[in-house]
Amino acid sequence: MRVLGVDPGLTRCGVGVVEGVAGRPLRMVGVGVVRTPADADVADRLVLIERGIEQWLDEHRPEYVAVERVFSQHNVRTVMGTAQASAVAMLCAARRGLPVALHTPSEVKAAVTGSGRADKAQVGAMVTRLLRLDAPPRPADAADALALAICHIWRAPATNRLQELAAAHRRTPTPVRIPKGTR
Amino acid sequence: MRVLGVDPGLTRCGVGVVEGVAGRPLRMVGVGVVRTPADADVADRLVLIERGIEQWLDEHRPEYVAVERVFSQHNVRTVMGTAQASAVAMLCAARRGLPVALHTPSEVKAAVTGSGRADKAQVGAMVTRLLRLDAPPRPADAADALALAICHIWRAPATNRLQELAAAHRRTPTPVRIPKGTR
Repeated sequence: MRVLGVDPGLTRCGVGVVEGVAGRPLRMVGVGVVRTPADADVADRLVLIERGIEQWLDEHRPEYVAVERVFSQHNVRTVMGTAQASAVAMLCAARRGLPVALHTPSEVKAAVTGSGRADKAQVGAMVTRLLRLDAPPRPADAADALALAICHIWRAPATNRLQELAAAHRRTPTPVRIPKGTR
Repeated sequence: MRVLGVDPGLTRCGVGVVEGVAGRPLRMVGVGVVRTPADADVADRLVLIERGIEQWLDEHRPEYVAVERVFSQHNVRTVMGTAQASAVAMLCAARRGLPVALHTPSEVKAAVTGSGRADKAQVGAMVTRLLRLDAPPRPADAADALALAICHIWRAPATNRLQELAAAHRRTPTPVRIPKGTR
Protein backbone atom coordinates (compact mmCIF):
# COMPACT_ATOMS: atom_id res chain seq x y z
CA MET A 1 0.00 0.00 0.00
CA ARG A 2 1.09 3.55 -0.75
CA VAL A 3 0.32 6.19 1.87
CA LEU A 4 0.66 9.98 1.87
CA GLY A 5 1.28 11.28 5.39
CA VAL A 6 0.47 14.93 6.09
CA ASP A 7 1.73 16.84 9.13
CA PRO A 8 -0.57 19.87 8.77
CA GLY A 9 0.52 23.45 9.36
CA LEU A 10 -0.07 26.84 7.76
CA THR A 11 3.61 27.82 7.58
CA ARG A 12 5.05 24.37 6.93
CA CYS A 13 2.90 21.41 5.94
CA GLY A 14 5.02 18.23 5.98
CA VAL A 15 4.26 15.65 3.28
CA GLY A 16 5.76 12.20 2.86
CA VAL A 17 4.87 9.16 0.77
CA VAL A 18 5.75 5.65 1.96
CA GLU A 19 5.09 2.34 0.26
CA GLY A 20 4.97 -1.11 1.85
CA VAL A 21 3.05 -3.53 4.01
CA ALA A 22 3.25 -4.34 7.71
CA GLY A 23 6.05 -6.80 8.46
CA ARG A 24 8.13 -6.01 5.36
CA PRO A 25 10.81 -3.34 4.77
CA LEU A 26 9.25 -0.01 3.82
CA ARG A 27 10.25 2.31 0.99
CA MET A 28 10.20 6.11 0.93
CA VAL A 29 8.66 7.37 -2.32
CA GLY A 30 8.99 11.09 -1.64
CA VAL A 31 9.20 13.68 1.11
CA GLY A 32 8.82 17.45 1.22
CA VAL A 33 7.19 20.49 2.73
CA VAL A 34 4.42 22.74 1.41
CA ARG A 35 5.26 26.26 2.63
CA THR A 36 3.15 29.41 2.68
CA PRO A 37 4.28 32.97 3.51
CA ALA A 38 3.44 33.98 7.09
CA ASP A 39 2.44 37.50 5.99
CA ALA A 40 -0.19 36.34 3.48
CA ASP A 41 -3.95 36.21 4.20
CA VAL A 42 -5.09 32.93 5.75
CA ALA A 43 -7.48 32.36 2.83
CA ASP A 44 -4.64 32.71 0.29
CA ARG A 45 -2.42 30.44 2.37
CA LEU A 46 -5.12 27.75 2.30
CA VAL A 47 -5.25 28.02 -1.50
CA LEU A 48 -1.47 27.48 -1.64
CA ILE A 49 -1.75 24.44 0.64
CA GLU A 50 -4.51 23.01 -1.55
CA ARG A 51 -2.31 23.47 -4.64
CA GLY A 52 0.65 21.82 -2.91
CA ILE A 53 -1.32 18.80 -1.67
CA GLU A 54 -2.95 18.38 -5.08
CA GLN A 55 0.51 18.25 -6.69
CA TRP A 56 1.61 15.54 -4.27
CA LEU A 57 -1.55 13.53 -4.92
CA ASP A 58 -1.17 13.92 -8.70
CA GLU A 59 2.48 13.00 -8.71
CA HIS A 60 2.54 10.09 -6.25
CA ARG A 61 -1.00 8.65 -6.51
CA PRO A 62 -1.27 7.36 -2.92
CA GLU A 63 -4.08 4.92 -2.04
CA TYR A 64 -4.49 6.27 1.50
CA VAL A 65 -3.95 9.61 3.18
CA ALA A 66 -2.99 9.81 6.87
CA VAL A 67 -3.33 13.20 8.57
CA GLU A 68 -2.25 14.13 12.08
CA ARG A 69 -5.28 14.50 14.34
CA VAL A 70 -5.29 18.03 15.74
CA PHE A 71 -5.73 18.64 19.45
CA SER A 72 -6.02 22.01 21.09
CA GLN A 73 -3.85 21.55 24.16
CA HIS A 74 -1.21 23.78 22.59
CA ASN A 75 -1.15 27.43 21.61
CA VAL A 76 -4.64 28.51 20.52
CA ARG A 77 -3.50 30.52 17.50
CA THR A 78 -1.30 27.71 16.17
CA VAL A 79 -4.04 25.13 16.65
CA MET A 80 -6.49 27.12 14.52
CA GLY A 81 -3.99 27.25 11.65
CA THR A 82 -3.23 23.55 12.04
CA ALA A 83 -6.94 22.67 12.04
CA GLN A 84 -7.46 24.76 8.90
CA ALA A 85 -4.49 23.22 7.07
CA SER A 86 -5.62 19.71 8.07
CA ALA A 87 -9.11 20.49 6.75
CA VAL A 88 -7.62 21.31 3.33
CA ALA A 89 -5.57 18.08 3.30
CA MET A 90 -8.63 15.99 4.26
CA LEU A 91 -10.75 17.77 1.65
CA CYS A 92 -8.25 17.15 -1.16
CA ALA A 93 -8.08 13.43 -0.32
CA ALA A 94 -11.79 12.83 0.24
CA ARG A 95 -12.69 14.72 -2.94
CA ARG A 96 -10.73 12.04 -4.87
CA GLY A 97 -12.42 9.25 -2.95
CA LEU A 98 -9.23 8.38 -1.05
CA PRO A 99 -9.73 6.99 2.47
CA VAL A 100 -8.53 9.50 5.08
CA ALA A 101 -7.22 8.30 8.44
CA LEU A 102 -6.40 10.48 11.43
CA HIS A 103 -3.69 9.44 13.87
CA THR A 104 -2.80 11.28 17.06
CA PRO A 105 0.80 12.43 17.62
CA SER A 106 1.22 9.87 20.42
CA GLU A 107 -0.09 7.02 18.23
CA VAL A 108 2.49 7.98 15.61
CA LYS A 109 5.34 8.23 18.11
CA ALA A 110 4.35 4.91 19.71
CA ALA A 111 4.16 3.25 16.28
CA VAL A 112 7.66 4.24 15.14
CA THR A 113 9.61 4.46 18.44
CA GLY A 114 7.65 2.25 20.85
CA SER A 115 6.93 5.24 23.11
CA GLY A 116 4.06 7.71 22.82
CA ARG A 117 6.22 10.34 24.51
CA ALA A 118 9.28 10.12 22.24
CA ASP A 119 10.87 13.43 21.18
CA LYS A 120 11.38 14.82 17.67
CA ALA A 121 14.98 13.54 17.45
CA GLN A 122 13.94 9.99 18.34
CA VAL A 123 11.15 10.03 15.74
CA GLY A 124 13.59 11.38 13.13
CA ALA A 125 16.15 8.69 13.98
CA MET A 126 13.62 5.87 13.67
CA VAL A 127 12.19 7.22 10.40
CA THR A 128 15.75 7.34 9.03
CA ARG A 129 16.40 3.76 10.12
CA LEU A 130 13.06 2.29 9.01
CA LEU A 131 13.25 3.87 5.56
CA ARG A 132 17.02 3.28 5.28
CA LEU A 133 17.80 6.94 4.61
CA ASP A 134 21.23 8.54 4.80
CA ALA A 135 20.10 11.26 7.21
CA PRO A 136 16.95 12.33 9.06
CA PRO A 137 14.63 14.28 6.72
CA ARG A 138 14.59 18.04 7.43
CA PRO A 139 12.63 19.96 8.60
CA ALA A 140 11.05 17.91 11.40
CA ASP A 141 7.61 18.36 9.75
CA ALA A 142 8.82 16.29 6.79
CA ALA A 143 10.05 13.50 9.10
CA ASP A 144 6.73 13.63 10.99
CA ALA A 145 4.80 13.22 7.74
CA LEU A 146 6.81 10.06 6.93
CA ALA A 147 6.23 8.79 10.49
CA LEU A 148 2.47 9.29 9.97
CA ALA A 149 2.57 7.26 6.75
CA ILE A 150 4.57 4.47 8.46
CA CYS A 151 2.14 4.50 11.41
CA HIS A 152 -0.75 4.13 9.01
CA ILE A 153 0.81 1.17 7.18
CA TRP A 154 1.48 -0.62 10.44
CA ARG A 155 -1.90 0.11 11.99
CA ALA A 156 -3.71 -0.53 8.71
CA PRO A 157 -4.67 -4.20 9.19
CA ALA A 158 -6.64 -3.36 12.38
CA THR A 159 -7.96 0.00 11.15
CA ASN A 160 -9.06 -1.32 7.78
CA ARG A 161 -10.86 -4.26 9.39
CA LEU A 162 -12.79 -1.81 11.59
CA GLN A 163 -13.63 0.39 8.61
CA GLU A 164 -14.82 -2.67 6.67
CA LEU A 165 -17.01 -3.75 9.60
CA ALA A 166 -18.46 -0.24 9.88
CA ALA A 167 -19.13 -0.14 6.13
CA ALA A 168 -20.77 -3.59 6.24
CA HIS A 169 -22.90 -2.46 9.18
CA ARG A 170 -24.05 0.59 7.20
CA ARG A 171 -24.92 -1.65 4.25
CA THR A 172 -27.08 -4.02 6.38
CA PRO A 173 -30.67 -3.06 5.55
CA THR A 174 -32.72 -1.99 8.56
CA PRO A 175 -35.53 -4.56 9.02
CA VAL A 176 -38.84 -3.01 8.06
CA ARG A 177 -41.67 -3.87 10.40
CA ILE A 178 -44.91 -4.34 8.56
CA PRO A 179 -47.88 -3.82 10.93
CA LYS A 180 -50.30 -6.74 11.12
CA GLY A 181 -53.36 -6.44 8.94
CA THR A 182 -51.82 -4.20 6.27
CA ARG A 183 -51.09 -7.14 4.01
CA MET B 1 -21.92 45.45 -3.11
CA ARG B 2 -23.06 41.85 -2.80
CA VAL B 3 -21.72 39.85 0.15
CA LEU B 4 -21.96 36.18 1.07
CA GLY B 5 -21.86 35.73 4.85
CA VAL B 6 -20.82 32.32 6.18
CA ASP B 7 -21.42 31.17 9.76
CA PRO B 8 -19.17 28.11 9.66
CA GLY B 9 -20.04 24.77 11.25
CA LEU B 10 -19.68 21.09 10.39
CA THR B 11 -23.30 20.19 11.14
CA ARG B 12 -24.92 23.43 10.03
CA CYS B 13 -23.08 26.03 7.98
CA GLY B 14 -25.23 29.18 7.72
CA VAL B 15 -25.07 31.06 4.41
CA GLY B 16 -26.71 34.35 3.50
CA VAL B 17 -26.32 36.82 0.66
CA VAL B 18 -27.05 40.53 1.18
CA GLU B 19 -26.80 43.34 -1.32
CA GLY B 20 -26.45 47.05 -0.61
CA VAL B 21 -24.21 49.85 0.54
CA ALA B 22 -23.71 51.48 3.93
CA GLY B 23 -26.37 54.11 4.61
CA ARG B 24 -29.00 52.68 2.24
CA PRO B 25 -31.67 50.00 2.81
CA LEU B 26 -30.24 46.50 2.35
CA ARG B 27 -31.72 43.64 0.38
CA MET B 28 -31.58 39.92 1.17
CA VAL B 29 -30.68 37.93 -1.95
CA GLY B 30 -30.78 34.47 -0.40
CA VAL B 31 -30.39 32.57 2.86
CA GLY B 32 -29.91 28.93 3.75
CA VAL B 33 -27.94 26.28 5.57
CA VAL B 34 -25.43 23.74 4.28
CA ARG B 35 -25.92 20.62 6.40
CA THR B 36 -23.77 17.50 6.74
CA PRO B 37 -24.64 14.25 8.56
CA ALA B 38 -23.09 14.08 12.05
CA ASP B 39 -22.25 10.37 11.62
CA ALA B 40 -20.19 10.87 8.44
CA ASP B 41 -16.37 11.08 8.36
CA VAL B 42 -15.02 14.61 8.88
CA ALA B 43 -13.26 14.44 5.49
CA ASP B 44 -16.53 13.58 3.70
CA ARG B 45 -18.35 16.33 5.61
CA LEU B 46 -15.78 18.86 4.39
CA VAL B 47 -16.40 17.73 0.81
CA LEU B 48 -20.15 18.31 1.30
CA ILE B 49 -19.49 21.77 2.72
CA GLU B 50 -17.24 22.60 -0.23
CA ARG B 51 -19.98 21.50 -2.64
CA GLY B 52 -22.58 23.57 -0.79
CA ILE B 53 -20.47 26.74 -0.67
CA GLU B 54 -19.57 26.35 -4.35
CA GLN B 55 -23.27 26.18 -5.23
CA TRP B 56 -23.94 29.40 -3.32
CA LEU B 57 -21.02 31.14 -5.03
CA ASP B 58 -22.12 29.90 -8.47
CA GLU B 59 -25.73 30.88 -7.97
CA HIS B 60 -25.38 34.26 -6.26
CA ARG B 61 -21.99 35.53 -7.53
CA PRO B 62 -21.06 37.60 -4.46
CA GLU B 63 -18.18 40.12 -4.73
CA TYR B 64 -17.07 39.60 -1.12
CA VAL B 65 -17.18 36.73 1.34
CA ALA B 66 -17.40 37.40 5.09
CA VAL B 67 -16.66 34.49 7.42
CA GLU B 68 -17.01 34.40 11.19
CA ARG B 69 -13.61 34.48 12.85
CA VAL B 70 -13.23 31.36 14.98
CA PHE B 71 -12.08 31.59 18.57
CA SER B 72 -11.37 28.69 20.86
CA GLN B 73 -12.94 29.88 24.08
CA HIS B 74 -15.77 27.42 23.63
CA ASN B 75 -15.93 23.63 23.53
CA VAL B 76 -12.70 22.25 22.04
CA ARG B 77 -14.35 19.63 19.83
CA THR B 78 -16.82 22.12 18.37
CA VAL B 79 -14.09 24.69 17.71
CA MET B 80 -12.07 22.21 15.65
CA GLY B 81 -15.07 21.50 13.43
CA THR B 82 -15.82 25.20 13.10
CA ALA B 83 -12.20 25.97 12.19
CA GLN B 84 -12.26 23.22 9.56
CA ALA B 85 -15.56 24.36 8.05
CA SER B 86 -14.35 27.98 7.98
CA ALA B 87 -11.15 26.85 6.21
CA VAL B 88 -13.26 25.32 3.43
CA ALA B 89 -15.36 28.49 3.07
CA MET B 90 -12.22 30.68 2.91
CA LEU B 91 -10.60 28.30 0.42
CA CYS B 92 -13.63 28.32 -1.92
CA ALA B 93 -13.72 32.13 -1.93
CA ALA B 94 -9.97 32.78 -2.26
CA ARG B 95 -9.68 30.17 -5.03
CA ARG B 96 -12.03 32.38 -7.09
CA GLY B 97 -10.06 35.50 -6.23
CA LEU B 98 -12.86 36.86 -4.00
CA PRO B 99 -11.71 38.99 -1.04
CA VAL B 100 -12.32 37.18 2.25
CA ALA B 101 -12.98 39.14 5.44
CA LEU B 102 -13.16 37.71 8.93
CA HIS B 103 -15.35 39.34 11.56
CA THR B 104 -15.58 38.29 15.20
CA PRO B 105 -18.97 37.38 16.70
CA SER B 106 -18.91 40.52 18.86
CA GLU B 107 -18.11 42.75 15.87
CA VAL B 108 -21.13 41.27 14.09
CA LYS B 109 -23.43 41.68 17.09
CA ALA B 110 -22.24 45.23 17.67
CA ALA B 111 -22.76 46.07 14.00
CA VAL B 112 -26.37 44.91 13.81
CA THR B 113 -27.64 45.49 17.38
CA GLY B 114 -25.32 48.15 18.80
CA SER B 115 -24.09 45.75 21.50
CA GLY B 116 -21.27 43.20 21.22
CA ARG B 117 -23.02 41.09 23.84
CA ALA B 118 -26.46 40.85 22.22
CA ASP B 119 -28.15 37.42 22.29
CA LYS B 120 -29.30 35.27 19.34
CA ALA B 121 -32.90 36.55 19.54
CA GLN B 122 -31.78 40.19 19.38
CA VAL B 123 -29.54 39.50 16.36
CA GLY B 124 -32.40 37.63 14.66
CA ALA B 125 -34.81 40.50 15.36
CA MET B 126 -32.46 43.13 13.93
CA VAL B 127 -31.67 41.04 10.84
CA THR B 128 -35.42 40.70 10.26
CA ARG B 129 -35.93 44.45 10.61
CA LEU B 130 -32.89 45.54 8.56
CA LEU B 131 -33.73 43.22 5.67
CA ARG B 132 -37.50 43.82 6.00
CA LEU B 133 -38.31 40.10 6.34
CA ASP B 134 -41.59 38.65 7.57
CA ALA B 135 -39.95 36.53 10.27
CA PRO B 136 -36.45 35.86 11.65
CA PRO B 137 -34.59 33.37 9.42
CA ARG B 138 -34.32 29.87 10.94
CA PRO B 139 -32.13 28.24 12.12
CA ALA B 140 -30.09 30.85 14.00
CA ASP B 141 -27.03 29.96 11.85
CA ALA B 142 -28.84 31.32 8.80
CA ALA B 143 -29.67 34.60 10.61
CA ASP B 144 -26.04 34.82 11.80
CA ALA B 145 -24.79 34.45 8.22
CA LEU B 146 -27.00 37.37 7.13
CA ALA B 147 -25.76 39.42 10.12
CA LEU B 148 -22.17 38.73 8.99
CA ALA B 149 -22.94 39.98 5.49
CA ILE B 150 -24.63 43.12 6.89
CA CYS B 151 -21.69 43.72 9.23
CA HIS B 152 -19.31 43.46 6.28
CA ILE B 153 -21.27 45.96 4.17
CA TRP B 154 -21.36 48.46 7.03
CA ARG B 155 -17.71 48.00 8.00
CA ALA B 156 -16.58 47.84 4.39
CA PRO B 157 -15.62 51.49 3.80
CA ALA B 158 -13.02 51.34 6.61
CA THR B 159 -11.91 47.77 5.96
CA ASN B 160 -11.57 48.21 2.22
CA ARG B 161 -9.53 51.39 2.66
CA LEU B 162 -7.13 49.48 4.95
CA GLN B 163 -6.89 46.61 2.45
CA GLU B 164 -6.20 49.07 -0.36
CA LEU B 165 -3.44 50.74 1.68
CA ALA B 166 -1.90 47.37 2.49
CA ALA B 167 -2.05 46.34 -1.18
CA ALA B 168 -0.48 49.66 -2.26
CA HIS B 169 2.26 49.17 0.34
CA ARG B 170 2.99 45.71 -1.03
CA ARG B 171 3.14 47.11 -4.58
CA THR B 172 5.70 49.82 -3.62
CA PRO B 173 8.98 48.53 -5.06
CA THR B 174 11.75 48.06 -2.52
CA PRO B 175 14.55 50.48 -3.42
CA VAL B 176 17.50 48.56 -4.82
CA ARG B 177 20.86 49.81 -3.54
CA ILE B 178 23.53 49.60 -6.19
CA PRO B 179 27.00 49.49 -4.57
CA LYS B 180 29.36 52.23 -5.74
CA GLY B 181 31.78 51.25 -8.47
CA THR B 182 29.64 48.51 -10.01
CA ARG B 183 28.31 50.86 -12.72
